[in-house]
Amino acid sequence: MTLARSALCLINYSRSSRCLGNIRQISSSSSNLTLTKLTSELYDVKRGPYGFVSDKDIRTFESILGEQRVITDESVIESYNVDWLNTVRGQSKVLLKPKTTEEVSKILMHCNEQNLAVCPQSGNTGLVGGSVPVFDEIILSMQLMNEITSIDPLTGILQCQSGCILENLNTALASHNLTMPLDLGAKGSCLIGGNLSTNAAGIRFLRYGSLRGSVLGIEAVLADGRVMDFSSTIRKDNTGYDLKQLFIGSEGTLGVITGVSILAPVKPSCVNVAFFGADTFEDLLSLLKLAKTSLGEILSAIEFLDSSCMKEVGEQLGMPNPISEHPFYFLVETSGSNAAHDGDKLDLFVENCLESNFAKDGTLATDLSKIQSIWNLRENIAEALKCKGYTYKYDISLPTIKMYDIVNIMRKRMGDDCTVYGYGHLGDGNLHLNVVSKEYDANILAQIEPFVYDYTASLKGSISAEHGLGFKKKKYIGLNKSPEAISMMKNIKQLLDPKGILNPYTTLPS
Amino acid sequence: MTLARSALCLINYSRSSRCLGNIRQISSSSSNLTLTKLTSELYDVKRGPYGFVSDKDIRTFESILGEQRVITDESVIESYNVDWLNTVRGQSKVLLKPKTTEEVSKILMHCNEQNLAVCPQSGNTGLVGGSVPVFDEIILSMQLMNEITSIDPLTGILQCQSGCILENLNTALASHNLTMPLDLGAKGSCLIGGNLSTNAAGIRFLRYGSLRGSVLGIEAVLADGRVMDFSSTIRKDNTGYDLKQLFIGSEGTLGVITGVSILAPVKPSCVNVAFFGADTFEDLLSLLKLAKTSLGEILSAIEFLDSSCMKEVGEQLGMPNPISEHPFYFLVETSGSNAAHDGDKLDLFVENCLESNFAKDGTLATDLSKIQSIWNLRENIAEALKCKGYTYKYDISLPTIKMYDIVNIMRKRMGDDCTVYGYGHLGDGNLHLNVVSKEYDANILAQIEPFVYDYTASLKGSISAEHGLGFKKKKYIGLNKSPEAISMMKNIKQLLDPKGILNPYTTLPS
Repeated sequence: MTLARSALCLINYSRSSRCLGNIRQISSSSSNLTLTKLTSELYDVKRGPYGFVSDKDIRTFESILGEQRVITDESVIESYNVDWLNTVRGQSKVLLKPKTTEEVSKILMHCNEQNLAVCPQSGNTGLVGGSVPVFDEIILSMQLMNEITSIDPLTGILQCQSGCILENLNTALASHNLTMPLDLGAKGSCLIGGNLSTNAAGIRFLRYGSLRGSVLGIEAVLADGRVMDFSSTIRKDNTGYDLKQLFIGSEGTLGVITGVSILAPVKPSCVNVAFFGADTFEDLLSLLKLAKTSLGEILSAIEFLDSSCMKEVGEQLGMPNPISEHPFYFLVETSGSNAAHDGDKLDLFVENCLESNFAKDGTLATDLSKIQSIWNLRENIAEALKCKGYTYKYDISLPTIKMYDIVNIMRKRMGDDCTVYGYGHLGDGNLHLNVVSKEYDANILAQIEPFVYDYTASLKGSISAEHGLGFKKKKYIGLNKSPEAISMMKNIKQLLDPKGILNPYTTLPS
Repeated sequence: MTLARSALCLINYSRSSRCLGNIRQISSSSSNLTLTKLTSELYDVKRGPYGFVSDKDIRTFESILGEQRVITDESVIESYNVDWLNTVRGQSKVLLKPKTTEEVSKILMHCNEQNLAVCPQSGNTGLVGGSVPVFDEIILSMQLMNEITSIDPLTGILQCQSGCILENLNTALASHNLTMPLDLGAKGSCLIGGNLSTNAAGIRFLRYGSLRGSVLGIEAVLADGRVMDFSSTIRKDNTGYDLKQLFIGSEGTLGVITGVSILAPVKPSCVNVAFFGADTFEDLLSLLKLAKTSLGEILSAIEFLDSSCMKEVGEQLGMPNPISEHPFYFLVETSGSNAAHDGDKLDLFVENCLESNFAKDGTLATDLSKIQSIWNLRENIAEALKCKGYTYKYDISLPTIKMYDIVNIMRKRMGDDCTVYGYGHLGDGNLHLNVVSKEYDANILAQIEPFVYDYTASLKGSISAEHGLGFKKKKYIGLNKSPEAISMMKNIKQLLDPKGILNPYTTLPS
């Protein structure tokens, strides 16, 4: 069977307002689940030895930010206390919204002096409970630090404050024929500083690699208010230890990132997506191999989802499957500079996929709306599962060839009370394993954890591929990191934040 | 004027034995300069408060390594005491050659207990005096730790010991249709652990980005012998602080890297090189812009050299210029998966370059020997200058549009006693500024330094783009890094190597 590009069978699904850029906002309104229990009760944790915010502290904050950007209205703070997944709820009484690095510095200097704990918050799209307070930490929202400082069209170097929304950066770059090296489902609300703090990966990771390579400079404020200027608008700098790397992926526990410079690649002039159905996971692996060898430098993403995910995006969000039903679906995106060349490569690839019988059906999308509707299937799985019930989320790296085994294992293990879903970044060996039950149940959780983590560690995988440890996973760090490494992390935390006021209940074990 | 691929005017230069892979060995024999003065005399530095190696220490080392791998023969140690450029000379009396991580661990544990300073050495191809001892540090050569542990053809993940030669890794990967994400002139003798320790960049940086993104895991031994296992064969892992980054680019001052895992991209099936002559640096910038937009995803390197460099590779090494003489030369390499597509893109690019008049002459190379002879021109500049005299080397990052100004400024400043050369990685804004005099002269050095560094810093450039600080540049770190940052580096050094035994005279200021 040969599938030509003319034989597109894509549909425009009906909920066009469900744009990818708006996930957090949509979920706030569409979700019928409200988490009323506090994290501290749910997880039985104890408050650290921090001070309590006094009226005098509030007056100090007001002297720094003005009255309007010091928020104590509980109804406003409400959404900043709960994570996007509705799985953790803090009880902060104070929300601060700085606009400049100097303001962040003054706030932290005061908090450090008064021993007040602080939860730095970006877009609050995190999935491991690292972006909301656990107790009454002051929420330091970076939302208003949203200025783009400069874009250099020749070198592709972007400089901005850390509170810029990822999608806005992409839009600003597009007018210079550039693009962000990072893309993820939450792009419409996540902030670049949060992306860096969690070392976010997303769907362009396959093409542009880790943020650790793309980020050229940062500015960060330490717990005591000192501003560490690692800003840079040059591509290469080997003068001393690369300390900015410490702040990337440390989830706000070592400092608050206030400024970013990042290398933006040239925006590809043509993007295509192919979407296939396959019978087995082994067939997906064969498709992966074929894609890597046939599509080479134009490959930009290789993703997969299983039939249970496809069912939910259909049922919960009304997004239809563009091809016939299969146990697995394979999504490959190409991006390049010459439409004819990319088209030729992709045609040949599609032909090979179908002729080899690794793919049983497929469709090709070359125009933007159709490409987006295929991507929506993949990117809205989290949203769909959230509508269905409480999601126990696992974001694990595994040896690629064994990546799906755990989904089958969990289906047997969990029985009928739960549904188990598998999808993720096939090209990166990164599985999103999701278990959904009607509501949160500690017994179900005990069935999953630490089993999933132990299993992952036994295969030398990572218990958190891209989401970080946050509050929810920090106790499992020992499965991936040695006691010596954890001890070194604690020493570095002690060096940079001696009082431990920054995001105190996240990342490192107590 | 149109230049078709059939009109190749490349020559095969006569010194085929001068292969790129052999730079260090060649220079040892071909150079007529021998540095007899010790670094400590040349630079007036004082020995640190370290112990002296005793017979008892030697016996301990022999008990760990056996007698053959504990070398005290001065004639053997000679070449390990002097750097490749013949610019620094140490006075070590002991050379150790471990084969395993366990041996490295035992050696360092002993050295730490006895307060003996250690100089970890890889291929000794460094350019800033970071790879040789300054006084009598024990040389810990990693040359024998050269085993490849595994190569995964599906994911492209390579695991090896840190003493593997870069070119050997590339050869091993080639049989799996993979390639190293890193390539540099010294590939025939540099070791991957040294590449990581100096955060080497090289000519594929433009395509595959920083090692900080490509390196998935390392194993490192701390000063006290503790083995830090950050090894990983997965692409994504966000569990805690990414401590391996501390060891990348820290020039052996925080630990000795013993194992590496790295992501190898698919080997491009076709490589092409175009080489142009241009009248002005502004024309090179126009060519750069054209290359980035026309060649997109197949771009793999954009380099330049000036006419003075071309003259020396001709006169010193007998390599002829394949095109007519021009003030500047522009080298662009493409690599991709489809020869026809790449050829079409490159033909169009060449046509545009010549029609726009930014390029005045040019040649295109599509077969390996011709490609290599063009690359040899660029990669052997350092070798040619070394034959000419003493080289004062500056490896600086600058805003790309101002990148060449400093070459002209230095020509005026230095007068007739010296010759000034400019070449480098145009696509990365990384200039190699070289000044050559007959022999080392402190007065000439004083004319160059700190002037070049101050100038670079005034433009927010980097005083060491890719070579590191080593011994020779460490005192200028303050031009690029703030006092707070340097203080934090010292704290981290103190944390990981409290006695300061590892490469004690490099990277951080005294």
